[in-house]
Amino acid sequence: MARLKLDITMSLDGYVAGPSPTLEEPLGQGGEGLHEWVTRLAAWREQHGLEGGETGPDNALVEETVGAVDAWVMGRRMFSGGEGPWEDDPNPDGWWGDEPPFHGPVFVLTSHAREPLIKSGGTTFTFVTDGIESALEQARAAADGGDVQLSGGASVVQQYARAGLIDEYQIHVVPLLLGGGTSLFGALGDQIALEQTRVVPSDVVTHLSFVPAS
Amino acid sequence: MARLKLDITMSLDGYVAGPSPTLEEPLGQGGEGLHEWVTRLAAWREQHGLEGGETGPDNALVEETVGAVDAWVMGRRMFSGGEGPWEDDPNPDGWWGDEPPFHGPVFVLTSHAREPLIKSGGTTFTFVTDGIESALEQARAAADGGDVQLSGGASVVQQYARAGLIDEYQIHVVPLLLGGGTSLFGALGDQIALEQTRVVPSDVVTHLSFVPAS
Repeated sequence: MARLKLDITMSLDGYVAGPSPTLEEPLGQGGEGLHEWVTRLAAWREQHGLEGGETGPDNALVEETVGAVDAWVMGRRMFSGGEGPWEDDPNPDGWWGDEPPFHGPVFVLTSHAREPLIKSGGTTFTFVTDGIESALEQARAAADGGDVQLSGGASVVQQYARAGLIDEYQIHVVPLLLGGGTSLFGALGDQIALEQTRVVPSDVVTHLSFVPAS
Repeated sequence: MARLKLDITMSLDGYVAGPSPTLEEPLGQGGEGLHEWVTRLAAWREQHGLEGGETGPDNALVEETVGAVDAWVMGRRMFSGGEGPWEDDPNPDGWWGDEPPFHGPVFVLTSHAREPLIKSGGTTFTFVTDGIESALEQARAAADGGDVQLSGGASVVQQYARAGLIDEYQIHVVPLLLGGGTSLFGALGDQIALEQTRVVPSDVVTHLSFVPAS
């Protein structure tokens, strides 16, 4: 069965977004710095239709991760930054423009039903209103043997973690302090136990992998 | 001049102690798990007058760290868990019994003056009431060319970090979630910027080193 893999970047002080996110600054104050390590890589740039970029260990890891994923699950907040009915959402088509970087099926958790959104380049956004298990089930069927990536945000990650549904945690820790914002793990605490399976070091980020402790 | 090196263990969710610390459970709920990685090492056991223990990369790193340090700075809370006047402190001689593992000069930051405390095995606790710069100055003089280790707790770390006085941050990240408690960095956020200098991976802990970004 397709594995559910969390893939997310976290500041050294535990945040996946800084304080006070807005439409203009969706990752909050200082939050843009979280993803500098990845946006300069060749694998990320290729995924986004751009040329050039750095190669090396970080790039190899991103290539490996992207290559194994055939479907995505994310929260509504991560998709658009909005909440409530879609007609009131100022960003109802998501952050990624006409050709999003997924090139595959994405399942968006929301309380508000909506028809699927078909984009160029093979990305489809399907809006799931009947809960995290349903979204995972649909993503697994769509992945057809590949992995399912859980992309965030923190609230959705915590729901899946608490339900014991995450098979692998890959967390990219960057040497950045945000001092507040959206905590990746929140109050999860002893509700989950992790076993470290891999550490890939580099100059600007540390890639940590975990599985649920048996 | 002697370098001030932070050396501290942090949970993956950013805490150096769990919720609700007590005299019986000074590291709070779940906090004991923070130091399992080190207490089983030969270098730690030798420092504490015990035989045996594991060797390997973690042990080599602890040996290297301990060997370079000739004086320590810590907060009152880390020393005894108490606060206020010493005569009301239920643990006025600290956590470490008659022969503490420091075997050298330790400077304890406190608001309450007190004569130095001389212990067996070369450990002296000097109580500093005139602030963090003074404690560091005294520790540097006492270290006589070695390094000064900043051991914690979080409040003292944040004071030294904010003042730009920490030369090196060594943080041992363990795959443990505490879900609350004492945050290592608190609200420091953009008050300090770090540059990663080293990552030493192992199976049960990741050793991250940083210097202040230039």
